[in-house]
Amino acid sequence: MDDRLRKQLDFALEIDKEKNIFRQTHLSGHGRNENDAEHAWHMALMAYLLREYSNEEVDITKVMLMCLIHDVVEIDAGDTYAYDAEGLKTQKAREDKAKERIFSLLPEDQKEELTALFDEFEDYQTAESRFAHAMDNLQPLILNNSNGGDDWKEHGVSAEQVYGRQNKTRLGSEKLFEVVDQIIKENIRSGKIRES
Amino acid sequence: MDDRLRKQLDFALEIDKEKNIFRQTHLSGHGRNENDAEHAWHMALMAYLLREYSNEEVDITKVMLMCLIHDVVEIDAGDTYAYDAEGLKTQKAREDKAKERIFSLLPEDQKEELTALFDEFEDYQTAESRFAHAMDNLQPLILNNSNGGDDWKEHGVSAEQVYGRQNKTRLGSEKLFEVVDQIIKENIRSGKIRES
Repeated sequence: MDDRLRKQLDFALEIDKEKNIFRQTHLSGHGRNENDAEHAWHMALMAYLLREYSNEEVDITKVMLMCLIHDVVEIDAGDTYAYDAEGLKTQKAREDKAKERIFSLLPEDQKEELTALFDEFEDYQTAESRFAHAMDNLQPLILNNSNGGDDWKEHGVSAEQVYGRQNKTRLGSEKLFEVVDQIIKENIRSGKIRES
Repeated sequence: MDDRLRKQLDFALEIDKEKNIFRQTHLSGHGRNENDAEHAWHMALMAYLLREYSNEEVDITKVMLMCLIHDVVEIDAGDTYAYDAEGLKTQKAREDKAKERIFSLLPEDQKEELTALFDEFEDYQTAESRFAHAMDNLQPLILNNSNGGDDWKEHGVSAEQVYGRQNKTRLGSEKLFEVVDQIIKENIRSGKIRES
């Protein structure tokens, strides 16, 4: 086997580990915790089906790829819960180190391509990254909402915290933010999200 | 919320159930059984990274979408193991019924689009479907091989059965079939795949 293909298959095998990185979100039907690979799959499909609601025109292939790879770094860095203030302080350093190790398994051109895509997602500056982030926020919200908001309750999350994160959904899609806003308000009323 | 968006979100929530459909393949590191959502995520990323090896030029967005949706029907129909002769006899009828129910949750235009994409995958007639199938075959093979071929051993799978399936990988990619062939031969030598 040539060196290029060997590297690509080594990377393909390495990312299998993403299936062991579990998140705080629970599957619908009061299921188990969700893992990063499932979350990425769900986001990518949702991005395709909901692309008509993006505020700006997007290259949907790029959005889907961002969705598929955005959590690969968590193989080394672990999942950082959206409302974990301490974890968030060290998140970037941990993820930068992981990004370098994991994408370096690929041939140089693909390392550069995926690193650039990952950085673009993190930087929140392009239409594609904003819509991909909207999916990163919407996907766990619909699961959590389907479970009566139990994930918010379990972590004592406040309205201020939820809006702090979900206001960014608005940058990707005003239309989807309307749904998000409605869901948040219902969960404040039912007491699953703490009033700030 | 308007009817179209409601339908799209109902579908998005429904497909969450794919994370509970477990396959015969085990995760690398002698891990647990893999589920359909993880498998689809893995296939879609591999398709993108390995697209240069497709025998024919492909629309990679279409291939990725096929990978992401190809197992959605298993939410109702369950997973049919590649070497389960009895299950394979009823697979099409079970999956057709599931396809109708699940895709009908979507707005009509998206139901038609996803049904067509699913059928195209199943029909094996286009370059995209052939390359997507190559991923459907290659992805579990690299996991199983990384675990020393234990999945084949557990099910007493023969070389004839493995080649019966993997010869189709060749239709999508001659180059990747070379790797597959090498892996199969090694696992016959080590006794993990029965000689026919």
